[in-house]
Amino acid sequence: MANGKFITLEGGEGAGKSTQARRLAQRLMDEDIAALVTREPGGSPLGERIRGLILEAPEMRPETELFLFAAQRAEHLAATIVPALARGSWVISDRFVDSTRVYQGDLGQLDAARIAEVERLSVARLPDLTLILDLPIAVGHARATLRGAQNRYDAQSEARHEIVRQGFLRIARAEPDRCAVVDASNDADTVAEAIWAIVRERLGP
Amino acid sequence: MANGKFITLEGGEGAGKSTQARRLAQRLMDEDIAALVTREPGGSPLGERIRGLILEAPEMRPETELFLFAAQRAEHLAATIVPALARGSWVISDRFVDSTRVYQGDLGQLDAARIAEVERLSVARLPDLTLILDLPIAVGHARATLRGAQNRYDAQSEARHEIVRQGFLRIARAEPDRCAVVDASNDADTVAEAIWAIVRERLGP
Repeated sequence: MANGKFITLEGGEGAGKSTQARRLAQRLMDEDIAALVTREPGGSPLGERIRGLILEAPEMRPETELFLFAAQRAEHLAATIVPALARGSWVISDRFVDSTRVYQGDLGQLDAARIAEVERLSVARLPDLTLILDLPIAVGHARATLRGAQNRYDAQSEARHEIVRQGFLRIARAEPDRCAVVDASNDADTVAEAIWAIVRERLGP
Repeated sequence: MANGKFITLEGGEGAGKSTQARRLAQRLMDEDIAALVTREPGGSPLGERIRGLILEAPEMRPETELFLFAAQRAEHLAATIVPALARGSWVISDRFVDSTRVYQGDLGQLDAARIAEVERLSVARLPDLTLILDLPIAVGHARATLRGAQNRYDAQSEARHEIVRQGFLRIARAEPDRCAVVDASNDADTVAEAIWAIVRERLGP
């Protein structure tokens, strides 16, 4: 059996990543393609415990966070992603390496070269396709508020959201072969169709 | 006020590291030198939570463990060690970088160059002096059993203990300016005197 494909969804809070991850998996399964939805931080039993540490901490040094993310990501790949791909399943992850580049780099102000080195040392497999769900700040903020989201990332100011948004767009420009930007300000059905068109064009399921 | 000195104690289970760390701190305080005893994994509130993850996991991939150790070490340095040294206190840590080199490298079979790169990216400050408490395997095993120690490291076989012992001795040979080997098979008073002689000679408190 051919290996599955590895797709990641990235973007700020409220962009609809988790909804679109589930919808993409359903669409693949409608085409008789096995699909696994996973997330970061998390993605494995140990990774979920690390997620707990990260999200419950009132504040964390970006450097410490960088290595906690590297730990959960190495585990996520080894325990979940790589085995699923090997058995022919597609894997869709809600956040992956680009979130570290943006949140610990652009936002946490860690040196980009240092982040890249840690990524090289901890990430055995990059995604085949990364969908960057792009959303004007005001829309994302309103959605996050509606959800009553309480973790640290939701509590960021709009200025921080703009840094995050521009960080993801910069990655998309730098790696156009891997990344595609999706306008996430539309309704969920429209976004799902746009994502499906990109997946078909890039990965041809 | 002059910065304090940073001393680490390394060695296999049952070598007496935590006892000797306390005794060395007491000896320094007897000389009117402020001394802080700390440990790894742990050393900070967040680091102690990471310690819980590491020690409670029934088994962990060495790669995941490598990055969890890097996270708690970056935090340990930034939150505990560097501030204490800056206010003039000496710091004595029960385990530090050498334990990662030995447990994830020699024992976990991760590539030594990869471990060195992660160390360079996560460790802002190396110890001024590392005391390697060396113990014949049979003595260490008997001591650990007496203590009723139950964590994974204590459950290692004697063959694994020998790998650990030789790993620490190799580091001592490779970095003689930083490291000193102490015969830990003697009684605690004799070991404490040997340690104090080395500390006085190397760091001249």
